[in-house]
Amino acid sequence: MTSPMKFCSTCGGAISYRVPDGDNRERAICDDCGTIHYRNPLVVVGCIVEHEGKIMLCKRSIEPRYGYWTIPAGFMELGESTAEGAARETLEEACAQVDMGPFFASVDVIRAGQVHIYFLAKLNGDFGAGSETLETRLFAKDEIPWDDIAFASGKYALQKYFEKDGVQNAPHIHTIYPE
Amino acid sequence: MTSPMKFCSTCGGAISYRVPDGDNRERAICDDCGTIHYRNPLVVVGCIVEHEGKIMLCKRSIEPRYGYWTIPAGFMELGESTAEGAARETLEEACAQVDMGPFFASVDVIRAGQVHIYFLAKLNGDFGAGSETLETRLFAKDEIPWDDIAFASGKYALQKYFEKDGVQNAPHIHTIYPE
Repeated sequence: MTSPMKFCSTCGGAISYRVPDGDNRERAICDDCGTIHYRNPLVVVGCIVEHEGKIMLCKRSIEPRYGYWTIPAGFMELGESTAEGAARETLEEACAQVDMGPFFASVDVIRAGQVHIYFLAKLNGDFGAGSETLETRLFAKDEIPWDDIAFASGKYALQKYFEKDGVQNAPHIHTIYPE
Repeated sequence: MTSPMKFCSTCGGAISYRVPDGDNRERAICDDCGTIHYRNPLVVVGCIVEHEGKIMLCKRSIEPRYGYWTIPAGFMELGESTAEGAARETLEEACAQVDMGPFFASVDVIRAGQVHIYFLAKLNGDFGAGSETLETRLFAKDEIPWDDIAFASGKYALQKYFEKDGVQNAPHIHTIYPE
């Protein structure tokens, strides 16, 4: 999560938090120039990468969840599509080129203020460990380290994947509420 | 689009644009405290609301696209799911309660830096015009004002809807690139 806004990014003025006229939520508003600075959920994009019946996971070399295993995924960037972002994150984290498959899941992660969008993909060539990864490995269904999966949304997507052995039976739309 | 960041929202220091170490994109970085301020795509959520074979559209009372017709939709807020946000926007723009249906489309709108997520929904009661709406109306398939639809993503979603007469045959995943 980003730190709370204290200064206006447009004019440098002091920020107050209040509900603007015609709105129903507290926003960061500049006392000097009046600019309203909104904060909204962000999109995380990633790939469930399959190769010979196994799924590729990356062991994280960064916080949060250092040392836990994750589906390659990260923040979508301006100028790219969700699928392009998912492929880029897979290249960055797992040094892996993939053939993109269908949209697989959209998971709202309320506490994080994020929407996690996963695509299916097939490994196309080698793989390795990017700068945010300690190790990348392929796991068969019965080898998945379920207790050491980094994020609940990734665990959900993997569970849905193996429920039907990778068949894209539907888009899986899910919300993870704060516990 | 938000205006470019000139001052650090954390400390008020001056912002420079450069590529941070280990990154590959130009970011807004504070010259004083070093905070990196990321900008990423935002999520827009909305409903294709059906009632007796007709679809509900709202005539916009605000820019951009004042006077054009739109599917009720708007920016997803922190603390809500995509479906909850879509229902909230429908209530705000069309004063309409709906019974939410399945996920229908996810459209990347590259130029806007947005992902537009649409759900199907059924009208449950009355409707009206919210503060961002001049008029709300139900349109049969052959009445849709195709030349006066506000946004390309909404037009895409409506086209997909009427292609199969509202049958949720698949999630429609689409990217609109800048022309």
